[in-house]
Amino acid sequence: MTTPLDQDLPVQEPDETDKQPHLALCVEIGGSHVSAAVVTLDGDFLSTRDEPLDSECSPSSTIQQVQTLLKSLFVDVASPLETYCGLAVSLPGTVRSKDGMCLFSHILQWEDVQVGEPLGQVLGQAPLLVNNVHAAGLGELHFGAGKDVDSFASITLGSGIGGSLFLGGRLYTGNSDSAGEIGHITVDPDGPECSCGSQGCLETMAAGPAIARMAEESIKVGAQSLLSTLVSGDQRVSAEQVYRAALEGDALAIKIWEKMGRDLGLALATLITLVNPARIILGGGVAQAFTFFETTLREEVRKRARVVPRDFTEIVPSPLGTRAGLAGAAASCFQNTLRN
Amino acid sequence: MTTPLDQDLPVQEPDETDKQPHLALCVEIGGSHVSAAVVTLDGDFLSTRDEPLDSECSPSSTIQQVQTLLKSLFVDVASPLETYCGLAVSLPGTVRSKDGMCLFSHILQWEDVQVGEPLGQVLGQAPLLVNNVHAAGLGELHFGAGKDVDSFASITLGSGIGGSLFLGGRLYTGNSDSAGEIGHITVDPDGPECSCGSQGCLETMAAGPAIARMAEESIKVGAQSLLSTLVSGDQRVSAEQVYRAALEGDALAIKIWEKMGRDLGLALATLITLVNPARIILGGGVAQAFTFFETTLREEVRKRARVVPRDFTEIVPSPLGTRAGLAGAAASCFQNTLRN
Repeated sequence: MTTPLDQDLPVQEPDETDKQPHLALCVEIGGSHVSAAVVTLDGDFLSTRDEPLDSECSPSSTIQQVQTLLKSLFVDVASPLETYCGLAVSLPGTVRSKDGMCLFSHILQWEDVQVGEPLGQVLGQAPLLVNNVHAAGLGELHFGAGKDVDSFASITLGSGIGGSLFLGGRLYTGNSDSAGEIGHITVDPDGPECSCGSQGCLETMAAGPAIARMAEESIKVGAQSLLSTLVSGDQRVSAEQVYRAALEGDALAIKIWEKMGRDLGLALATLITLVNPARIILGGGVAQAFTFFETTLREEVRKRARVVPRDFTEIVPSPLGTRAGLAGAAASCFQNTLRN
Repeated sequence: MTTPLDQDLPVQEPDETDKQPHLALCVEIGGSHVSAAVVTLDGDFLSTRDEPLDSECSPSSTIQQVQTLLKSLFVDVASPLETYCGLAVSLPGTVRSKDGMCLFSHILQWEDVQVGEPLGQVLGQAPLLVNNVHAAGLGELHFGAGKDVDSFASITLGSGIGGSLFLGGRLYTGNSDSAGEIGHITVDPDGPECSCGSQGCLETMAAGPAIARMAEESIKVGAQSLLSTLVSGDQRVSAEQVYRAALEGDALAIKIWEKMGRDLGLALATLITLVNPARIILGGGVAQAFTFFETTLREEVRKRARVVPRDFTEIVPSPLGTRAGLAGAAASCFQNTLRN
């Protein structure tokens, strides 16, 4: 619609500012899914894709899957190449961005995989590589619940449990780039064996596979549940299904989330006592079930941590949910553009 | 001895530089002892006193005891008043230095005690008050095993267990001035009740009273030990005696230190996994028994923490031993002089 007022204004090319770089193309490779998005400087997601990882999960098949995903996203958003600040890739492992290497990923079973070269073809420039635990924290820092506090811990509850610490407004990595790894602190000294070689790590009690395992074990010894039919067949139970069963009021599912809340609560009490950040942010797929584990989690924190520091560390679910990693990859992209 | 060369030099008053402020008068009030020292800018202890706290342990009797102790130390060192930078007092609780208050001490059972005014009379200037856990860490930072690393945790093993974190060369206090309190992280979820209201805190498994309790309990159920005669009488066993018995090769005492090493090792693995400092420094009276708990401690750390970060956090006994707190009080004094 054109009004007389519009006609008085100087003529402006509507596309001119839109041609400046202001978008980030982001991808997150997880343990079971790969997701991608185009994100604006404000943290808005213009378009998002999420799909299961190709079952083969070899480096070459995964990289090809990511290439296809990014190209379809690029076509979908239909913004010119020059509007992109760059591409950032979040990976579940140790990365070395300067030469595009994923040095090691236990989850993907990758070692020394060249990711930068093939994915660099998408935008015609080398991608930025970020560890996915750090990416989730950066997402909270710039676009989520870490924006307004001086210190916070970002915890991702998924097929594993990752964590990162932001102290004084900056990522704190410790002496070997691995501080904040709350998934591998001992919660039950005699608990289940962990892939890390220890036992009773938080990850063996509160990550997705642990939730599924608890359901399967209970059903095998006779517990009644909406999930029973799944266990009798070939199909395995997933944490997602235990969540959906809880939504339906399934007593076993609810009990499992309550147990998970107590174990996670013990670990958070330890984090509060040792690090005492202003806020703890719980994200990742498993955190979707927050309402089902919140009560027992807070009870356990109240029991295990003293009033001070307990009352000075807030525990909140992530406002970004499962998008924290992509948001953080975008933030890395924009920061990198600012620096260069 | 006077040489011809000396005679050519300008005449110098030998006392002139000695009259400049270069000494700190320091006192540390602990759970059972009070100690005091005159410390030089190099961290040398010119004279030291250590005595049991008056049994009454009221604020007034303790303050009077400290006054007497400091006066005798002052006379002993015989250095003029102007050579002192000041007096620093390390206390086991929450302090507010600007108006000389000890706001709260669980160990001393003090609440809102005016310490600054009566102790200010000793040097004729208001003393600096420091929390004793922070003081021990400051001692390591300036004069001990924290001098050459960017990050470290200082842990004091005594009648309680305190800890402080130094990250990027500075004390990290968290959001409520209490980060690093490793004594109150859960080591055994079903362990002994703790004074803090939780159970199985490290303090209930590895502090002095826990060591003594383990010895008493074992002897009561029939264990043979050099300590047996103590338990049969009215006298209680002390951690110091369990240490001396271990030195004599007593099997029960050795077993108790091994158990303590495993529990402390689990807590240190958690600290390494979450905070990953370059060094962990173990001080305080109980750390004297380091050789008896070192092996099981390192075994447990190896079991519970992954190679990275484990291999990037060194665990060492404090080179300052029980003097870390006094050394840190001295460091506070010198820092304060520099700032003013």
